[in-house]
Amino acid sequence: MSYYKHHVFFCLNERKNGEAACAQHDAQAAFDHCKARVKAEGLAGPGGVRINKAGCLDRCAGGPVAVVYPDAVWYSYVDACDIDEIVEEPLMNGRVVERLLRAPIVGR
Amino acid sequence: MSYYKHHVFFCLNERKNGEAACAQHDAQAAFDHCKARVKAEGLAGPGGVRINKAGCLDRCAGGPVAVVYPDAVWYSYVDACDIDEIVEEPLMNGRVVERLLRAPIVGR
Repeated sequence: MSYYKHHVFFCLNERKNGEAACAQHDAQAAFDHCKARVKAEGLAGPGGVRINKAGCLDRCAGGPVAVVYPDAVWYSYVDACDIDEIVEEPLMNGRVVERLLRAPIVGR
Repeated sequence: MSYYKHHVFFCLNERKNGEAACAQHDAQAAFDHCKARVKAEGLAGPGGVRINKAGCLDRCAGGPVAVVYPDAVWYSYVDACDIDEIVEEPLMNGRVVERLLRAPIVGR
């Protein structure tokens, strides 16, 4: 059994060279919102959900991105409403949010 | 199918308050070694292996730790030999390294 039922990694990568990076798209705010919401719902912890900071996930063309493991489902999000939907569907109900799925072809 | 066959997250968390943190145990050097070795073996990239920086994975009592997804297998390592074994067994041959497994009970 997975130590966390859902382990979510947010790319918070910053780049100084002008290339696209998730940090330019308020990834930190989305991470903070997701972490607070998961805590408020009582989902956080072993056997539950962990919202984690990550470096570059190397799918920058679809940024800002987050990945849910062990499900291995990738999402692109825009705002706090998208994050709420990720909390309410995949993390609380085990349902994929189709409209936010990152297309398999999108890489760096 | 998972975008990466194996997506490995190394905790590189630092703490200023004196509490245990993976960064005190050369986690950055282990991450660098793992990333270089995976690249040298030609494993890196979509459909292959991604070695990723992460913030605190909240299993500090077993640090330094890394987790391999979507396998959801957690390792504690000590040195470059341990990292080589993680590359050669789970990442190249799909075999778990029993001696480095993080006990399920170990949390923060």
